[in-house]
Amino acid sequence: MKNTFGNNISLTLFGESHGSEIGAVLDGLAPGIKIDEDFIRHQLSLRRPSGAISTARVEEDNFRMVSGVFEGYTTGAPICIIIPNENTKSQDYSKTKDLARPGHADYTASCKYHGFEDYRGGGHFSGRLTAPIVAACAILVSALREKRIFIATHIAELYGTFDRKFDHNRIIEDINALSCAEFAVLDKEAESKMKDEIVKARSEGDSLGGELETIVVGVPGGVGEPWFDSVESMISHAMFSIPAIKGVEFGDGFGFAAMKGSEANDSFRMDGDRVVTDTNHNGGVNGGITNGMPILFRCAVKPTPSIFKQQNTVNMSKKENVTLSLEGRHDPAIIHRARVVVDSMTAFVIADMLAGRYGTDFLATEDKK
Amino acid sequence: MKNTFGNNISLTLFGESHGSEIGAVLDGLAPGIKIDEDFIRHQLSLRRPSGAISTARVEEDNFRMVSGVFEGYTTGAPICIIIPNENTKSQDYSKTKDLARPGHADYTASCKYHGFEDYRGGGHFSGRLTAPIVAACAILVSALREKRIFIATHIAELYGTFDRKFDHNRIIEDINALSCAEFAVLDKEAESKMKDEIVKARSEGDSLGGELETIVVGVPGGVGEPWFDSVESMISHAMFSIPAIKGVEFGDGFGFAAMKGSEANDSFRMDGDRVVTDTNHNGGVNGGITNGMPILFRCAVKPTPSIFKQQNTVNMSKKENVTLSLEGRHDPAIIHRARVVVDSMTAFVIADMLAGRYGTDFLATEDKK
Amino acid sequence: MKNTFGNNISLTLFGESHGSEIGAVLDGLAPGIKIDEDFIRHQLSLRRPSGAISTARVEEDNFRMVSGVFEGYTTGAPICIIIPNENTKSQDYSKTKDLARPGHADYTASCKYHGFEDYRGGGHFSGRLTAPIVAACAILVSALREKRIFIATHIAELYGTFDRKFDHNRIIEDINALSCAEFAVLDKEAESKMKDEIVKARSEGDSLGGELETIVVGVPGGVGEPWFDSVESMISHAMFSIPAIKGVEFGDGFGFAAMKGSEANDSFRMDGDRVVTDTNHNGGVNGGITNGMPILFRCAVKPTPSIFKQQNTVNMSKKENVTLSLEGRHDPAIIHRARVVVDSMTAFVIADMLAGRYGTDFLATEDKK
Amino acid sequence: MKNTFGNNISLTLFGESHGSEIGAVLDGLAPGIKIDEDFIRHQLSLRRPSGAISTARVEEDNFRMVSGVFEGYTTGAPICIIIPNENTKSQDYSKTKDLARPGHADYTASCKYHGFEDYRGGGHFSGRLTAPIVAACAILVSALREKRIFIATHIAELYGTFDRKFDHNRIIEDINALSCAEFAVLDKEAESKMKDEIVKARSEGDSLGGELETIVVGVPGGVGEPWFDSVESMISHAMFSIPAIKGVEFGDGFGFAAMKGSEANDSFRMDGDRVVTDTNHNGGVNGGITNGMPILFRCAVKPTPSIFKQQNTVNMSKKENVTLSLEGRHDPAIIHRARVVVDSMTAFVIADMLAGRYGTDFLATEDKK
Repeated sequence: MKNTFGNNISLTLFGESHGSEIGAVLDGLAPGIKIDEDFIRHQLSLRRPSGAISTARVEEDNFRMVSGVFEGYTTGAPICIIIPNENTKSQDYSKTKDLARPGHADYTASCKYHGFEDYRGGGHFSGRLTAPIVAACAILVSALREKRIFIATHIAELYGTFDRKFDHNRIIEDINALSCAEFAVLDKEAESKMKDEIVKARSEGDSLGGELETIVVGVPGGVGEPWFDSVESMISHAMFSIPAIKGVEFGDGFGFAAMKGSEANDSFRMDGDRVVTDTNHNGGVNGGITNGMPILFRCAVKPTPSIFKQQNTVNMSKKENVTLSLEGRHDPAIIHRARVVVDSMTAFVIADMLAGRYGTDFLATEDKK
Repeated sequence: MKNTFGNNISLTLFGESHGSEIGAVLDGLAPGIKIDEDFIRHQLSLRRPSGAISTARVEEDNFRMVSGVFEGYTTGAPICIIIPNENTKSQDYSKTKDLARPGHADYTASCKYHGFEDYRGGGHFSGRLTAPIVAACAILVSALREKRIFIATHIAELYGTFDRKFDHNRIIEDINALSCAEFAVLDKEAESKMKDEIVKARSEGDSLGGELETIVVGVPGGVGEPWFDSVESMISHAMFSIPAIKGVEFGDGFGFAAMKGSEANDSFRMDGDRVVTDTNHNGGVNGGITNGMPILFRCAVKPTPSIFKQQNTVNMSKKENVTLSLEGRHDPAIIHRARVVVDSMTAFVIADMLAGRYGTDFLATEDKK
Repeated sequence: MKNTFGNNISLTLFGESHGSEIGAVLDGLAPGIKIDEDFIRHQLSLRRPSGAISTARVEEDNFRMVSGVFEGYTTGAPICIIIPNENTKSQDYSKTKDLARPGHADYTASCKYHGFEDYRGGGHFSGRLTAPIVAACAILVSALREKRIFIATHIAELYGTFDRKFDHNRIIEDINALSCAEFAVLDKEAESKMKDEIVKARSEGDSLGGELETIVVGVPGGVGEPWFDSVESMISHAMFSIPAIKGVEFGDGFGFAAMKGSEANDSFRMDGDRVVTDTNHNGGVNGGITNGMPILFRCAVKPTPSIFKQQNTVNMSKKENVTLSLEGRHDPAIIHRARVVVDSMTAFVIADMLAGRYGTDFLATEDKK
Repeated sequence: MKNTFGNNISLTLFGESHGSEIGAVLDGLAPGIKIDEDFIRHQLSLRRPSGAISTARVEEDNFRMVSGVFEGYTTGAPICIIIPNENTKSQDYSKTKDLARPGHADYTASCKYHGFEDYRGGGHFSGRLTAPIVAACAILVSALREKRIFIATHIAELYGTFDRKFDHNRIIEDINALSCAEFAVLDKEAESKMKDEIVKARSEGDSLGGELETIVVGVPGGVGEPWFDSVESMISHAMFSIPAIKGVEFGDGFGFAAMKGSEANDSFRMDGDRVVTDTNHNGGVNGGITNGMPILFRCAVKPTPSIFKQQNTVNMSKKENVTLSLEGRHDPAIIHRARVVVDSMTAFVIADMLAGRYGTDFLATEDKK
């Protein structure tokens, strides 16, 4: 379905980096979900570039909800959120419009769209479109919290520096800390090392990627489908929609390649009336379906392709080899901005699966007006 | 859509490990695709257990195509492929029906289906259902070959033993070698070490996982969608549908976390009239869309959860802790059997995306009767 | 989605008139729905040809459920129902395979499938495929009855003879009478006149159509969607899938063209705590959503295109004009057999919409095993 | 999929009658379709109220395309069209917010949305939302014309007055005449009688419906699917999405009920190299698939439910019987405004089916930039 995703609720995305407005339509939501505009603004702020480790293109992200919200609650009709593009410098791109930037979608877009694509700033492929994703899904993040379902993501690795693991004994504290953090790292020392690495990469005209780790607590057992709509299928589908994500693994993921079954299985035991596991090698999912333990996965984020070092490439219209030196405003890393996008798309998938299982009204925070 | 997958062509899966028959419906195919039943049998043989490294439950997989095929060609109507279950020993399971096997879907199924699920041999969750997937997608594998699109998967790692990399200068030879290999490893020495490891794990009552690496050559540039139906989204969705897959990465994948942009970007250059890249860190996909280079991805396969070592678990109906010692026939590793499933689902996604881009008739091998 | 239909539950159809087997996959159902095989047989018997007013090709319809059912209940996994084709005389069709039978899909199939289609007996287009639809949806019909939702269809008109209207004061009696009736007419006199007309048409080598009227009682208010998935959209989509249906109208339907708003509106009033309407011009649907009154719609059924009178047509391979005189076994009318197909597809749509609104488990007849 | 429709291209609708903006997202289009903004304005003008036969709420419909269009052509990315709501008088509705207007969706919306719906002017159910449908689909109407596919709709009946039939010998002239006509009637005398009837109904505080007839010429044979995505299924699904449509019939439709097979079949004959039929009882569709003849169907339009006569209804919050006298600005008939909506949704379905059959790029008017 191209720019629409979801089975029971759906998200439709539109816009280009340098168009007048970008936005998203979120449909299928329960009526009676309380809208917290401040929280939406907060989530957008986590995505916004900040200081020396980000691009100088900073946007206000003055979103407006033009439909689906009435007197502070969702109505059940589709919510369209629109964000104007304000701080665009389109002329930066006209010079290089025929040069395929390595690692970007310029060349693949020209194969697909035969030159009709809006080339300015990556056009429809721009990470700028994650802003409406974050704004729309903020509604879901807060609705899920009302149901005691919490999502958080931290930067687990950046260029060889590792954050500490989630502390499962104090997981709500970790989640709360991340929800406010501008730079989502649990260990302060790791944070400062990572930031230094980003600043250093910037000074070299280079860029960095990393690894994000996400936890979801509070999803009951029995959610997901056995084959094509497994929890892992739906979450990975959503994650690989996010620009720069090139890997997704659940639980021990690629670590399983060097493990034995006796190390990989999570033994069940009773905890009062509840069935739990002590280990969580499987990341909360067995056979594609949640087992009630935290859902745990990691996403590989590739280094931002926009670098200032000179690169070899081709002029797509002249069909000749050229060298390219990018100018303009670019992020030396986007991983710290990407994490709220990961949280947002995760919230979408969780809400979608819950709506399928428990019906449309499940996420409503109020029953009746 | 639960047990149905695909946008332009679709695959619907049904059956249980110990039911009378299992099968799949493949719909949306072009009319005029030649059906090669021997090739279907060959693909099924690659999935079948073999010797000391597999389960003793061996099935003939006597598939029949009950619809959609007429006089040796696809008709354009849905193809239903049915495979009888023959070598079932259902009594093996009745003793343990209330015991949640760790790493399996027993507990999550009981959460979702409230005890109505067919518990015998994993029921609908059984890897047995990959047989109709392989049979149905064999039609696509051969149709894609007619269009000069080739897919191959090898065991890149097993318990610390690594196969050699694909040789991109002789990639068709590598692909051909794998298409016949019973145990899909390119380096004979690695093969024998891996088999030894599996036999050893079996003797310990334990099991192993590993890592599969897949290559697709011949897909033109411009296939895929920018956001939710990116090539990575669609392929990962399909891969995570396969039991035991717990990670998917494209190109350098998780390796990107410790790389710089200048190392991660693939420079473009002209090769005659064609735009190519020398490196392929991005696995043939930029911005979610193919760039004409080989599509390259890896899947993490967890160790088979059925092990003979004693495990702790719960009795789901009595809600009490118990120990479990599995009996019956189980695979000490399924990675060598899973690779043809990976090839099959990959063929499905590629065919689906090509059908969307070039129309229904694209995969026909004959134009007109 | 071609041969798959439904948003929350789905029905996938496969098979050809003269293939070995035909069938359907019904997916997304709640676990714990009681399976009544006798009722499935009963529903199939209503579709089966009978006596002088039907074709002489009578099939046993020995269905088998090869998946999704365990110990008498749905498991929640996809149910595949298979019916063997037994009484086929394929040689009847080889003589006329290049002659486009007027009113049939022979010519359109050859445009679409370029001659690869199975031409025998209409192939995949055959009304024979409604047998698995009826078998699969019988599960839904009985599950809906458990929830006090009842569906019935009668032949409202046949070649100028009209049945009496539903008696809304005794609607359950009308529904019960129709559920057993071999020929679904409420007025015995109309029934015998209609049967006479069919016999007469048969003796002339001709055929008849008619009009079916369907009622659904017990659906609560608030089901359906405002725009593209309105109750009318979903029901009409399903009805026009049934061969020979060429018109669908809700409530007063085409009669509205000569009415005024003051005659067309249904006034609301309180009936105790319930909001009701006295008239039902709108057929139980306002703005695409149920209002709690009976859903009422009519389907136009065209005369069976297989007639024995000589017809002009073309030889599709020679591209020349010819005359055609059909032989073989054909129905002089299929309306009395079509009504259970209408009931079946209606049950599907209602169950699909309820599953979306109230969640997967809504239709379960048992909560827990 | 609720407010999203389409298999290969998709249309997503959002907005409310009295919200700030309404709009639609059209996705999956070929790149390189020329955008003719004047034509979009023209199509919108056909939907706009005019003079004595319409409401006094007239809007400028100042649409803007905020995405998916670049330098005058579609880019292949989703097109979002936004139209501000300007001439709203929301206070008209606050007095009657608890009174369920008969024939409207007020009551069904309150069942579904529990009182959270935007009640002003019908909210999300308002016919106002057909404006973005018309604007978005205007792009398709002109792209189809480039491919020699033409669509036109006329008012076939209004309160007992009938327009003349389409003249199949001069069908392009008829289509051209309708494409400019403010009031889509072919026979001038019928037009003036119909307008008189509307004016008379208005003076009585009442309203009228009617019947629309649509023709599509130029669609090749072989488009559509045999079962669930038949041409009739897809078109009727789209038509019943339009407010006030309560019936859809193809070819002779409900007239088939009193016909014989020998009268209903359309004989084929050769016309040079082409297969044609002389009659078109089946409306250009056999077995759900186009046969190359004009697609012909009719829609029943119910009288506008907003009438000024006093009506009985209920106060939904007080749960008591009341009388209701509507005030505000209302249409005494919407059929003349609805016809361009019918054309628009028809264009959508045709474009969607062609995209599936011939691939994404089929509708492009330019191949390469």
